[in-house]
Amino acid sequence: MPRPKAIEYSEASDAVKAVYDEIKSARKLDDVNNFWKYLANDEKTLRRTWDSVREVMAPGALDPLVKEMIYVAVSVTNNCGYCIASHSAAAAKAGMTREQFQELIAVVGMANETNRLVNGYRVPIDPAFER
Amino acid sequence: MPRPKAIEYSEASDAVKAVYDEIKSARKLDDVNNFWKYLANDEKTLRRTWDSVREVMAPGALDPLVKEMIYVAVSVTNNCGYCIASHSAAAAKAGMTREQFQELIAVVGMANETNRLVNGYRVPIDPAFER
Amino acid sequence: MPRPKAIEYSEASDAVKAVYDEIKSARKLDDVNNFWKYLANDEKTLRRTWDSVREVMAPGALDPLVKEMIYVAVSVTNNCGYCIASHSAAAAKAGMTREQFQELIAVVGMANETNRLVNGYRVPIDPAFER
Amino acid sequence: MPRPKAIEYSEASDAVKAVYDEIKSARKLDDVNNFWKYLANDEKTLRRTWDSVREVMAPGALDPLVKEMIYVAVSVTNNCGYCIASHSAAAAKAGMTREQFQELIAVVGMANETNRLVNGYRVPIDPAFER
Amino acid sequence: MPRPKAIEYSEASDAVKAVYDEIKSARKLDDVNNFWKYLANDEKTLRRTWDSVREVMAPGALDPLVKEMIYVAVSVTNNCGYCIASHSAAAAKAGMTREQFQELIAVVGMANETNRLVNGYRVPIDPAFER
Amino acid sequence: MPRPKAIEYSEASDAVKAVYDEIKSARKLDDVNNFWKYLANDEKTLRRTWDSVREVMAPGALDPLVKEMIYVAVSVTNNCGYCIASHSAAAAKAGMTREQFQELIAVVGMANETNRLVNGYRVPIDPAFER
Repeated sequence: MPRPKAIEYSEASDAVKAVYDEIKSARKLDDVNNFWKYLANDEKTLRRTWDSVREVMAPGALDPLVKEMIYVAVSVTNNCGYCIASHSAAAAKAGMTREQFQELIAVVGMANETNRLVNGYRVPIDPAFER
Repeated sequence: MPRPKAIEYSEASDAVKAVYDEIKSARKLDDVNNFWKYLANDEKTLRRTWDSVREVMAPGALDPLVKEMIYVAVSVTNNCGYCIASHSAAAAKAGMTREQFQELIAVVGMANETNRLVNGYRVPIDPAFER
Repeated sequence: MPRPKAIEYSEASDAVKAVYDEIKSARKLDDVNNFWKYLANDEKTLRRTWDSVREVMAPGALDPLVKEMIYVAVSVTNNCGYCIASHSAAAAKAGMTREQFQELIAVVGMANETNRLVNGYRVPIDPAFER
Repeated sequence: MPRPKAIEYSEASDAVKAVYDEIKSARKLDDVNNFWKYLANDEKTLRRTWDSVREVMAPGALDPLVKEMIYVAVSVTNNCGYCIASHSAAAAKAGMTREQFQELIAVVGMANETNRLVNGYRVPIDPAFER
Repeated sequence: MPRPKAIEYSEASDAVKAVYDEIKSARKLDDVNNFWKYLANDEKTLRRTWDSVREVMAPGALDPLVKEMIYVAVSVTNNCGYCIASHSAAAAKAGMTREQFQELIAVVGMANETNRLVNGYRVPIDPAFER
Repeated sequence: MPRPKAIEYSEASDAVKAVYDEIKSARKLDDVNNFWKYLANDEKTLRRTWDSVREVMAPGALDPLVKEMIYVAVSVTNNCGYCIASHSAAAAKAGMTREQFQELIAVVGMANETNRLVNGYRVPIDPAFER
């Protein structure tokens, strides 16, 4: 089994092309990102992931910018370089300002620190938080 | 060295009492949470952490509710039980609705999934994200 | 202390050469991978790690392909780029098909998602699982 | 917003009941696990997650037992207590023997160790793995 | 396969008893900790892990206290509750003072924070660090 | 919002220059590392982080070399490439020998392994560790 490669539109199956078309249309892009081109190696996972991402990231009780910033927060915590780059770009496209980015990263840093202070001191949950 | 214990206000040093008073005043609470009571075992870290948290979580380009939700996103990713409980409570106090909580957790779940799809397929960063 | 470098066979000590020979013989390779060449900076850890890996990855109740896929699952979760590359290659050599790889990555993604849904909703363990 | 609670069948909406019925039928259970009862707080995420899990965990190129063991491997790496308990039980139900469980955990432990040896020695990827 | 249980000395096989005896003798304990009693379900992993831990944790270029504190640092970062408790106790037994514990946890917290600041800002490695 | 860039001394604000000067003076360097140059995009976080790092990493109950090794342990566990490179260099500058580095990485590897053995076997905390 060789290493997976990007599948370009011109060489894609009809099922993959259909997902690419939906992504390009929904996001107003000329081409899909590498994430989708690699996921296209597995048509079922491409379709399921796109349907799930579209549902989860749609405007709802949280607006799309907040959702993209949450995505960045998770990706920074997990150190997923691709995900940090792509979702920082998506957040910027959704209107994130430089100041919002800076505060986002500052909160992520602080949360990762205090998570470990809690672990180290083995802090028991306050009864008030259990209700 | 025995296991660290909570330090209650009545038994705290003046330096610790001063931090507790600032927290109670800033957050309109009668008592501080266990996090602070355990951190009080190390007066310097208590003072530094409170000063940092106060600066980072203050209203700015992002409002306090968004900041608390980012804190929850990190804590859920790291599986810090205390932090999930305390920051979910803080987010609720800052106005988070049930629908916002649900969407927050759904985004965190999805981001943790796609972070690993990216890793597994070794997706290279699109040149457009590097600019 | 300069950055560790790869130790090639020709410059290796007898103790390191002995481990390299065992690896090449067991895995039918002309040369060992970079992992072993870097680990060779610490002869004791090289020897201990090779002995442990050989024991753990040997055919047993689980066959070597399943073991390599479990290795990939952990490495993808931890985002260890080298480990994903080397154990994907090892799994392919052990017979992993493209379809098996795709299903493996899909399960890893899903598990990372539902792990966080569990954390976010603070799901208590069902009594039936404790038995 | 109070802490999420389990939603039992008798108090569930028709949409939630439909998912519960599908789970009970597919898995031959009298009742669904806490995971689903808590996820039911968010009907859309319940439906999407069940549909995704059902697709991903179905027999395919990998059999269900291997898939459950991969799930355990991820959950152990992430230290998700609920997930370790529930997927260990699911793997046992799918036929995992005591010896298979032991080998699974041994591989997960070893992979988490060598992932960090790789990080610490900053091992570069062998060109052969890039092809 | 039921959930693993602790294996007490009186019910242990000769191979397990031999490991228990070595641990009790090396650590001057009347009984081994739960970690070993659960690992004893897998005799091979019990033996291999004890041999490895004994070699890795032996006094060497780093003294045992420093090694125990490094163990705590990893366990706090991974949020392994058992490991935090057992290695904090081991570090205390090796002479860790309250002040050393506090500084240890403070460094672990700070490192977890700056690790994420680095990720968020996508900081490239300084050429000087590559040499 | 374009991708953050390094801010060089010559183009920095007075507030940023002041931090750079403090770092160069405290660490006897001609120039600050990329970490600080990128963090300088957010003056408040630059100032807060430098003040915190200076306080946490100062000689105290633990000497600076031990603190740098703990930093490396966390960074290796989190797989932060930049942090591993920069703190390995800082530890070497603080006097870490090749043998100390090797033992450090060996302990980090072992701790990451046994953390997962504990998770997999769901080992309950010994009552003695709770006191």
